[in-house]
Amino acid sequence: MPLIMSLLQPLLADVAAESVNLAEAGPLILAAVLLSLVVIYFASKVGGEICARINFPPVLGELVGGVVVGISVLHLLVFSEGGTTEPSLLTTFIQQTAGMDGAVAAVVANTASEVISVLSEIGVMILLFEIGLESDLEGLLKVGPQAAVVAVVGVIAPFVAGTLGLVTLFHVDLVPAIFAGAALTATSIGITAKVLAEIQRLTSPEGQIIIGAAVLDDILGIIVLAVVASLAKTGTVEISNVIYLMISSVVFLVGSVVVGRLLSPFFLGMVDRLSTRGNLLVPSLIFAFVLGYIAVILQLEAILGAFTAGLVLGETEKRRELEEQILPIADMLVPVFFVCVGARTDISVLNPLEPANRAGLIIASFLVLVAIVGKVVTGATVFGQPGINRWAIGIGMVPRGEVGLIFAAVGSVSGVLSKALDAGIIVMVIVTTFVAPPLLRLVFKPGATEALPTSDVAVESPPEG
Amino acid sequence: MPLIMSLLQPLLADVAAESVNLAEAGPLILAAVLLSLVVIYFASKVGGEICARINFPPVLGELVGGVVVGISVLHLLVFSEGGTTEPSLLTTFIQQTAGMDGAVAAVVANTASEVISVLSEIGVMILLFEIGLESDLEGLLKVGPQAAVVAVVGVIAPFVAGTLGLVTLFHVDLVPAIFAGAALTATSIGITAKVLAEIQRLTSPEGQIIIGAAVLDDILGIIVLAVVASLAKTGTVEISNVIYLMISSVVFLVGSVVVGRLLSPFFLGMVDRLSTRGNLLVPSLIFAFVLGYIAVILQLEAILGAFTAGLVLGETEKRRELEEQILPIADMLVPVFFVCVGARTDISVLNPLEPANRAGLIIASFLVLVAIVGKVVTGATVFGQPGINRWAIGIGMVPRGEVGLIFAAVGSVSGVLSKALDAGIIVMVIVTTFVAPPLLRLVFKPGATEALPTSDVAVESPPEG
Repeated sequence: MPLIMSLLQPLLADVAAESVNLAEAGPLILAAVLLSLVVIYFASKVGGEICARINFPPVLGELVGGVVVGISVLHLLVFSEGGTTEPSLLTTFIQQTAGMDGAVAAVVANTASEVISVLSEIGVMILLFEIGLESDLEGLLKVGPQAAVVAVVGVIAPFVAGTLGLVTLFHVDLVPAIFAGAALTATSIGITAKVLAEIQRLTSPEGQIIIGAAVLDDILGIIVLAVVASLAKTGTVEISNVIYLMISSVVFLVGSVVVGRLLSPFFLGMVDRLSTRGNLLVPSLIFAFVLGYIAVILQLEAILGAFTAGLVLGETEKRRELEEQILPIADMLVPVFFVCVGARTDISVLNPLEPANRAGLIIASFLVLVAIVGKVVTGATVFGQPGINRWAIGIGMVPRGEVGLIFAAVGSVSGVLSKALDAGIIVMVIVTTFVAPPLLRLVFKPGATEALPTSDVAVESPPEG
Repeated sequence: MPLIMSLLQPLLADVAAESVNLAEAGPLILAAVLLSLVVIYFASKVGGEICARINFPPVLGELVGGVVVGISVLHLLVFSEGGTTEPSLLTTFIQQTAGMDGAVAAVVANTASEVISVLSEIGVMILLFEIGLESDLEGLLKVGPQAAVVAVVGVIAPFVAGTLGLVTLFHVDLVPAIFAGAALTATSIGITAKVLAEIQRLTSPEGQIIIGAAVLDDILGIIVLAVVASLAKTGTVEISNVIYLMISSVVFLVGSVVVGRLLSPFFLGMVDRLSTRGNLLVPSLIFAFVLGYIAVILQLEAILGAFTAGLVLGETEKRRELEEQILPIADMLVPVFFVCVGARTDISVLNPLEPANRAGLIIASFLVLVAIVGKVVTGATVFGQPGINRWAIGIGMVPRGEVGLIFAAVGSVSGVLSKALDAGIIVMVIVTTFVAPPLLRLVFKPGATEALPTSDVAVESPPEG
């Protein structure tokens, strides 16, 4: 009932003027969000359980579950940025069960999809916060040089091979070729981190190198995107913006760790003096959200802030307690992210029966090859770590996830990418995202590395019950 | 970065056409939500801790913290339905740190405030789910007759006294008098339940009677609102709608408990077979959200669905485990609700120096008196329970919370209420909401009732650390 108060909402008033209808919209937005969450949870559990049964990583099942309920198949969960004008099945269902007219339904669907988007982003922040908590800062710093080499090679190799290949083999113009090459660079940290946690290799040397490289890769990806976006828009590269991004990301990462470590005794002292519920959790969330906010303002990603906050708090004596408390929150919010990634993925570009797709599929095969080989070679660059599983590190860097889709979206909107090239990038993102989790589990087969210490980490323990 | 994809958002496109600006809006919506949550958490912790120190219920501190950051004082958290056109301080801050223009800022602020609204409603659902888990269905059914009498008397007494008093003493017309009388009827279940949990009296006989009566009161309040809204709109009462609401609420409450109990062995069997993370939590959330959705579609409140889901699951052997898992989620989301209730409360109507407020304040004094006395007398109606704390039951029913504000909003929008009467209702809501928590703690002073069994309920244990 509180949302009935939104009948004065100016935003709603623009769309439909009749106040009686708007009085209905408030509770219906909540209803639409609840139903979307129910669909998301069903998809994540059905997909995750099936994958767990056939020994695939559950996160792959969440992604596939998202594809099934999303734009590609059932149309239950459709995000408005997909460019679709047809209402989702969910909207139609709510419209019929609640009896609202079209204008109200459009507002309800739009607002609910915006709320779910934000929830999914808070979900991936919670995931990265959890990963940060479990990561060992000392260990990450120790493998820092190796991770840096893996990250840099993993950006340069697919970028150069992709751009050159498109120009020489497919006679693509230089600017679109650079754009597509850039789309090959960024690892999706969320998917890799989730798989590593699922197969209990997050704290292994390989896991730490992959996480460190994926974090650096995320920053490099943002810089590459800034470069190619300004190239696409103005034909030249704004050097000042690139320098700004480089400096601000270094200052942010180093600064928040250093300042965070200085402030953590004060933080722990404060937590111990608090006497109300959430005395540890709420201040920790404040810390993570403040760093996330600063990251966004610096044009970085909110997940970098959340990861850094987790890293700093993971160094404190409250680590175990906080890990236990963040666990159910992650269980509630993280599936929203993975199902939404799947739901946004339009697999219709994979259909070879559609003649328009064929040019894209040929380019796609090339891009997929470059995308996988370009990352797998990074495993060979790891130095000074005898006996390390180099295949695992290379494959851990393969999934492109939603970051590659952003490149495709920006390129497509700016008019740089042809339809075939755009489809090729989307196929590359789909294949790398969906192929990496099972491959990663395969190369990390038991006995492939030295025995791991018995894990005391909450996320890695099997579920109770 | 994922939200950058919302650059194709049609809703945004309506407001500001330039696509460059819209590419900015996506991450900024997340930034605005994060900053709003930081403000909410600060307000809840500072307010809650101060109240805990001076032996007031922490939830009162969260409400007051919300008032401080909300529309009344700091303007950090402003909801667009308040009718204010000035941007919140938070929007200005984001605008300055992120450098966006006015049109984008308006979209960002509106969307973020909608997201926070939905989060606060999910927060109160989680609270009621938690309360349901801890409530004892057998115990609730045992005190059912007493709770029903308390609820009915607590609706009739203030309604009749308020309406008659306004007509005879203040010469108010009948329809507005009925409307204002109706605004006196509905107890705010969230505030009462939170205070009872905080003072560890949720499972006492008084606590069970109050919770049972508050749930019934919530339903009676919805029926009363439907009656007075149709009276205000058409001058007559749609009997069919009232009958529909009565039948659907009975069918919903009884039906979901009966069906839920029948299905719970199947539910537990399924939970035991799931092997991925969140195997208990996610199916429980699906259950709560489905019931919440059905409640909204039946024109009831989502919190009734969440409460019923908690009640049913609280009967199963998974109760303890689920209580532990829901605890951090409640700590994360419940404060959002209480701070938002405070932030929406405009205390400027309490200022007697403003001449326009004086007529409202005189009516308000009368309404406050009727509101408190009309609920406190309900304690006297409890039969067959020797030695029960009757004061506590009466005072537990006093807070009106946001439900009363909805009456004021609907009345004000429909043009039925004069400015003075509208202000009087708002003052009544503020006073009853803010006066009930400390009074409740006072009448529940140690030794006032028989000794309680040692609680094993998660929410009632003191915070760790």
